Parts: sequence; C-alpha cells; structure tokens
Amino acid sequence: MGEHIGLCARAMLNCGLTDLRLVAPRDGWPSEVARATSSGAVAVIDGARLYPSLAKAVADRKFVVATTARGRDMAKPILVPETAASAMIKIDGQSGADSVSALVFGPERTGLTNEDLTFCDALLTIPLNPDYASLNIAQAVLLVCYEWHKQTALGKSLTEINPSLYDQLAISDLDLADKGEMENLLLHLEDALQESGFFTAQDLKPTILRNLRNMFQRMRLSRQEARSFHGMIKALHGREWKRRS
Amino acid sequence: MGEHIGLCARAMLNCGLTDLRLVAPRDGWPSEVARATSSGAVAVIDGARLYPSLAKAVADRKFVVATTARGRDMAKPILVPETAASAMIKIDGQSGADSVSALVFGPERTGLTNEDLTFCDALLTIPLNPDYASLNIAQAVLLVCYEWHKQTALGKSLTEINPSLYDQLAISDLDLADKGEMENLLLHLEDALQESGFFTAQDLKPTILRNLRNMFQRMRLSRQEARSFHGMIKALHGREWKRRS
Repeated sequence: MGEHIGLCARAMLNCGLTDLRLVAPRDGWPSEVARATSSGAVAVIDGARLYPSLAKAVADRKFVVATTARGRDMAKPILVPETAASAMIKIDGQSGADSVSALVFGPERTGLTNEDLTFCDALLTIPLNPDYASLNIAQAVLLVCYEWHKQTALGKSLTEINPSLYDQLAISDLDLADKGEMENLLLHLEDALQESGFFTAQDLKPTILRNLRNMFQRMRLSRQEARSFHGMIKALHGREWKRRS
Repeated sequence: MGEHIGLCARAMLNCGLTDLRLVAPRDGWPSEVARATSSGAVAVIDGARLYPSLAKAVADRKFVVATTARGRDMAKPILVPETAASAMIKIDGQSGADSVSALVFGPERTGLTNEDLTFCDALLTIPLNPDYASLNIAQAVLLVCYEWHKQTALGKSLTEINPSLYDQLAISDLDLADKGEMENLLLHLEDALQESGFFTAQDLKPTILRNLRNMFQRMRLSRQEARSFHGMIKALHGREWKRRS
C-alpha cells in the first residue's frame, strides 16, 4: 500500500537510509499516496527504484537479510537487528566504496514467502514481547534501521554521552524520596518563601519556582534528607506548615 | 488524541510494558478511539490511569526521564534510549519489588514544556538523522521502550544469538559473487538438470529449485568460485549454456 511505503520512507530517512527498492507494489508506482504520506522524506520516494521481482531487486547485492516475523525452519542464520546491522556494516566496509548489503521486508499482511527467503543470506527477527509481537511494516523498518544507524559513524557520534553528565545521575543505594515527597517539600518551601515576602515581583514567581524545582530534582534527596529539609525550612521560617489541600 | 494513545499502548506492549499513565488527554477519557486503535493491546488501555497533572502522575516515582525532541539548555543529564534504559533498570533493581522509574512523553505536536521538565531527573533524546529527526509519538515510544526491553532479562534471552549460526555468515574478505551472478549460476544448473532429465516429476521442480537456491546462498561463493561452478556444470553436462532472456 502506498501509505505504508510512505511511512517506511520516513523511517528510513530518520535513520539516514535513502536507497529504497520496491518489488511490484500492489497499488502501482509512482504513488501519490506514498508521496503524500512520506512528508519530509519525499526525496526517498522520488528516488525509489521499481523491480518486477525480488531476484532483480537484489541482483547487485552480496549480503541480503530478510525480515521475518516468525521463526522459519531453515538452515539460515537468524539475526536480531543489532547483529544484522553489524554484519551489514562489516560486509559493506570490506566492499570498499559502495554498500553491497540489503534489508528485505515483506508485504504488510503476508510477509515474505519461503521462495523470497531463498534469495537471502540470513533471517532477521525482532525480539519483542512473545505474547504481543505484531508490528506494522513501518515500525519494523524503523527499529531495524535505527539499530543500523546507531552503529554508523554518525550514529555513534550522536549517541556519545557526556560521562560527567551521566555521572550526575549518581545512581546509588540511597532510599530516594519519590516525586510526591519532593513536591511536598517544594510546596512547603514556596509557602514559607511567600509568607516571608521573598517573592517581591509576583510575575517572576513561576520562573523562580521552576528553577527551584529543577535544582531540587538534581539534588536527588533521600527520604531522610527530604525530612531534614522540612525541618530546616520550619526552623528558618519559625512556623509549622500545613499543606494546602 | 485517542488514536496516538492507542498506538502508544501497542508499542508499549510490544516491549512488555503495561503501566500507562495519562495526563489530562485532550479528547477525554475513556476513549473509544484509543481502544479501537490499540487492537491487541486493549488491556493496556483499560488499565491506564488518568491524572490531572504530571506532578500527580509521577508522585510515586523516584526516577523520571523526559523525552524531548530538541536539546534543551538545562542542567540535566541528557541520555539516549540505551543509557536511559540502563539507568532505569538499575534504579528499579535497587528499589526491590516494584518499578520506581518512569518515561514521560509529551503531546504529539508540542512536546513537553519547560515546566514539565522540572519534574524530571534526566532528559532523553533519540539520536536520529539530524536532517530528518521527526518521529510521531508512537514511534518514539516504540524506540525507547525497545531499548528498555532489550536490556531486561526477557529481552536479553530473546536477543541471544546462536553463535554457530552467526559464524555461518563467515564474513570474510572474499570477493563475494553478487546475487545476480548467483541467480545466473542457478539458471545454468536448472537448465542443465532439465535437459538431463533430472526433474522426473515436474511438480516437484519448484521445491527442488527452492532448496537448491537456499543451499547456494549458504555457500557464499566468491566470484571466482561461481565461475568455476559454471565450468563444472558445463563439463558435466557436455554443452555450452546460453542464458534465457
């Protein structure tokens, strides 16, 4: 269906892939529906090549991976998206200038036939919840292409995490306060500040509160520390606090 | 929109997640559209909990990750799906019995506000093609939840690859024949077998050819080896071969 082709083109371009090959699409080609659905990825649609058979579509390929929903009883390696991507990238790298690998997806409803699979070197299944594994084709394309993208040079550079920021998470064995306790603490602080005349300009109050909440999230207080904070505010303000309902 | 909520429920269940919390959905709740769109994931919809604010939705959480499309100028760790998943799983594991983490996604069009982000410990961006990074919310949910699923015990068991099968790929420096050359070789073999009277039962021929093609894909012949095979067939059959057009 044109709509599925358009959505697949988007998923491909999301992951930096552009070489779309179509085998005898049901609704003919070119397809205005596919163009319309592809939105920003219309260049992928306009650059798509049409083939009468899978054999012709993969004729210039050296490594072809077929996506199948269910395991097949075939003597072919069964990969997951990560291992398929690393095999493709390795084989492409050895080939020099051009890509020589391909991912094959079957029609939305029926998937690939056993005949189709004879043209392929390996099978790929996406390891989802065994009790609910159905994806539409554009989602399958997205997941598989995303794993490829992550392993490319561009993808790797984008997924690099600033370690110092990651360390800020300070994942520890602390008995962290939950978000409700944190909100309670912030309400206490806000009320105390309000009563103390801290908010001289009321129009700035929302921004100040937002900054405060960000600061407190960053502190990642334990339950005990949150209680201590209540105590400190009460001591400083000199009054008991009763939460607004 | 109900439709997006239904699609998000499906993406969650694909990855084994079921605890859906909704903050003031635009079209009200319950939503028949959401139920209809969720198809097999209707249990996630029916189990969804409704909250008037993000603060209330995350009140019992201790680690909250907010998904944002664009980088924000905030002093919060910026994660990618993989690192967000590992942080969540680690913190959940430390908490004992229950999950204490949450992923937050904003409305389809507008995303999360800076106010929303104040309730969160970390930001998550999906590192897509910088020139075309737009995803709809259900696709974003799918990619992020899939990374989480892969790191769970179930996901890990499903993504384990049989190493011996993977090794069969024998990714090497061979100058592999492309699929067109392989098909040419198979046609030569088929014609020679046909002329030799090999196919005694013509109704079995398609199955035999399919098995042959699978066998030859598995051999992963180099260009040179494919040429040698042509020579062998010609020698055995005693005739030159001319490809059918």
